[in-house]
Amino acid sequence: MLESAEIGHRVSKAAYVRQLPKLREALLNAQYDLAQKRRGPLLILFAGIEGGGRSETANTLNEWMDPRHIRTVAFGPRDCEELARPNAWRYWRALPPRGRTGIFLNAWYNEAIVAHFKGRIDRDALEFQLTSIRHSERMFVDEGFSILKFWIHLSRDAARQRLKELARQKDRRWELTPDVLERTKSYYKFRDVCEEVLRESSTSEAPWYVVEGEDPRYRNLTVGNIVLETLNRTNAARAAPLRMSHSPAPAPPAIDNVLLVRSLDLSRKLSEAEYDKAMPKWEGKLARLTRTRRFGKHSLVLVFEGADAAGKGGAIRRVTGALDARQYVIVPIAAPTDEEKLYPYLWRFWRNAPGHGGITIFDRSWYGRVLVERVEGLASAYDWRRAYDEINQFEEQLVGGGAIVCKFWLQISKAEQLRRFKEREKTSFKRFKITPEDWRNRKRWNDYEHAVADMIDRTSTEIAPWTLVEAEDKRFARVKILKTIATRLSKGLD
Amino acid sequence: MLESAEIGHRVSKAAYVRQLPKLREALLNAQYDLAQKRRGPLLILFAGIEGGGRSETANTLNEWMDPRHIRTVAFGPRDCEELARPNAWRYWRALPPRGRTGIFLNAWYNEAIVAHFKGRIDRDALEFQLTSIRHSERMFVDEGFSILKFWIHLSRDAARQRLKELARQKDRRWELTPDVLERTKSYYKFRDVCEEVLRESSTSEAPWYVVEGEDPRYRNLTVGNIVLETLNRTNAARAAPLRMSHSPAPAPPAIDNVLLVRSLDLSRKLSEAEYDKAMPKWEGKLARLTRTRRFGKHSLVLVFEGADAAGKGGAIRRVTGALDARQYVIVPIAAPTDEEKLYPYLWRFWRNAPGHGGITIFDRSWYGRVLVERVEGLASAYDWRRAYDEINQFEEQLVGGGAIVCKFWLQISKAEQLRRFKEREKTSFKRFKITPEDWRNRKRWNDYEHAVADMIDRTSTEIAPWTLVEAEDKRFARVKILKTIATRLSKGLD
Repeated sequence: MLESAEIGHRVSKAAYVRQLPKLREALLNAQYDLAQKRRGPLLILFAGIEGGGRSETANTLNEWMDPRHIRTVAFGPRDCEELARPNAWRYWRALPPRGRTGIFLNAWYNEAIVAHFKGRIDRDALEFQLTSIRHSERMFVDEGFSILKFWIHLSRDAARQRLKELARQKDRRWELTPDVLERTKSYYKFRDVCEEVLRESSTSEAPWYVVEGEDPRYRNLTVGNIVLETLNRTNAARAAPLRMSHSPAPAPPAIDNVLLVRSLDLSRKLSEAEYDKAMPKWEGKLARLTRTRRFGKHSLVLVFEGADAAGKGGAIRRVTGALDARQYVIVPIAAPTDEEKLYPYLWRFWRNAPGHGGITIFDRSWYGRVLVERVEGLASAYDWRRAYDEINQFEEQLVGGGAIVCKFWLQISKAEQLRRFKEREKTSFKRFKITPEDWRNRKRWNDYEHAVADMIDRTSTEIAPWTLVEAEDKRFARVKILKTIATRLSKGLD
Repeated sequence: MLESAEIGHRVSKAAYVRQLPKLREALLNAQYDLAQKRRGPLLILFAGIEGGGRSETANTLNEWMDPRHIRTVAFGPRDCEELARPNAWRYWRALPPRGRTGIFLNAWYNEAIVAHFKGRIDRDALEFQLTSIRHSERMFVDEGFSILKFWIHLSRDAARQRLKELARQKDRRWELTPDVLERTKSYYKFRDVCEEVLRESSTSEAPWYVVEGEDPRYRNLTVGNIVLETLNRTNAARAAPLRMSHSPAPAPPAIDNVLLVRSLDLSRKLSEAEYDKAMPKWEGKLARLTRTRRFGKHSLVLVFEGADAAGKGGAIRRVTGALDARQYVIVPIAAPTDEEKLYPYLWRFWRNAPGHGGITIFDRSWYGRVLVERVEGLASAYDWRRAYDEINQFEEQLVGGGAIVCKFWLQISKAEQLRRFKEREKTSFKRFKITPEDWRNRKRWNDYEHAVADMIDRTSTEIAPWTLVEAEDKRFARVKILKTIATRLSKGLD
């Protein structure tokens, strides 16, 4: 697929000057349309052969369009904050919001290609990364993104010519790092890797556009026209993003009506004496483990889900009691803010991914997508169904970045919930915990139960398993949670 | 003021156990009240003598209260992201939003005390820092914060005793760094520095509470009660924060009605030939300067203000045309988002402070406080009047962190604005630039002119001067802006 970009495409100056004013006006119009309709965002990736003019093209787009609506980010070596977090964190942090355009230079593709070319990752690892990239891009498209991937190409002769030119320019000579020279020297080997990556990652939702980089006029005009066409298409689409042709499979029906959460033995309990003996043991273990040097290479992500009044808050306070307040952040999840609504639903969780040595405790979480949003009809069936895979991938990325992920579902009976609601209404300092919404949710108990069953079926993975907690007895629940965290942490740090 | 915390305060276990349940319940209640009313936030600073139990007290507060509404942050050595930005950036980043509590361990006071104790800053520099701290704290209080500053104290004997205990504990021995040992060895010298800092920074709006740290029960109970009392006071206050007794002075009246902005010679212009000669020169200079190694120790903050249609957007595009798209971020300022509204008005600008080597371009800015918010009555007279000093301090902090700050006021005549409005309505690709609000603003032209005059009077400082731009002729304006940036940058990098 690269040959057609090695044949010396050119545009004459006359043709360029003739086409440019119209193109620029149309681009501005399309851009303002996107902003006003809050469509998109448009994400433009530039990758390619060294010297092909990726950043020059990015600069040109900024010049032609309104740069106030564009955010251009180049990804180089990771800084310390990025190194302490999952690989994808820095890309999420740089995502454009709806209505805007983001330009990424040397993002995930460059990273994968160079790693493989330099032998740091083998073919299997490369395949794995490409699969993960395909999933992510598909999710972004499902979330309304338009993704444009430009491969700015040069033939071997043109690439060599470019290096020579660079070497002659005093203030750009520094760009010729040993890496760059190596890639140009082994042009065909490097080109092979690139071609394979392009082939494997050119999908219907986010295809590659290979553009010959030798002639700036041809390159800029080609890229500009494709950007315009994409912006127009994005603006013309219905408000809902384009759906993939193969819809995510529905959950298997629970024919016999036997659900895992219903089969929990809610009569399990601990006496005060047992609690007073067990609790300090696990608290102590957790306290010691989070203060070890080894924990400085890991992080801890705790997810608490459960019906209203299931005891999430109390359990979280028992966990934090064992932790140093400087280490953890508790993120209570309510409806997204208007800023958060401009990004994919996972954005606000990525934002809170802990760095090495840190702990983030989610009081409710991304599982809202397949629980409350599903049950209350806030997400379409297409959207909550695809969320299972997206969530699994998200957690895989967290774990890949050194996180230990513990997810707790706190289960109580409907009768116990009623008892706690009534108790809360009586106790003054708990009064803010009970709202009319809690009473509403209670009416949909059965719907929630099915949603929970599906959620556990589909997202309890080996790397990030769900722990079902019999929470009818608070003492039993709290000890089980502390014990689970301490045990998983102990294993994870080994 | 420290002696009274060196006399061995104690609370018996019986008294502690008796008082605790009531205190905890009251704390929770007050905390939920704060959250529901979106008051505050409450910011608690812990500083003090080594071994006094600052972090233990923070942990206790997290245990007693609902940790989901508390964010505890300890400030140690700066990481690379923090080092590249003004000193105060990391504190702004960690601020609690309205309705929440923030606990800062070893924030700005610790930093100032240790720096002076170790001889890194002299007495004058210390005074300067304390003045800056007083201003900041006052601003936070004006913005609705309640600030509690706890100095957890130990007598010399108690401090030495504590170190011995630490040395015996295997897993805490590492806390005894050479710095800590030095401070305890030179106890009285260190104590003198501390006492002076406390005296100078104990203000009516944010007084210090000196608490003896030796007996944890006494310490925790004292801190807990003060926190409770403060929360209750914050919740009981009227919605508007307490006003300082001395109101900021109003601007001097423009008796003769001669305003600097009116005295600009709007007939200044450049011919196309002059423009084509001047522009490449300054673009080239700017391009070279921002690509030098020296710029890697600085950053550039550009502020564009001006009436609607004064040409801010066009000027910004000429500036970015000379820059590498990877270096700059353009921040268009509109009404704050709901997240931003939970923080002091400068928060969203701090958020976008560029790191070393970076450029942030503000298309409208913090000056909205003394322009649109003043003229439209969105901020009270008290609030916009105090903003002049706050803004000057903010810019001083930016400059202190290596930023070069250029501020442009683009001035056009009322007649020219009308001409441009009409032209815009005709030109399709400019159509999104003209809104009914623009026509409304135009009616208040005179009020804006006075607000602009005051703004320039009070915020054109030596370190961050305003450049008044005669913008009737776009070519003239653009060249003047490019030239100003390039010249200031060139001086700043010397």
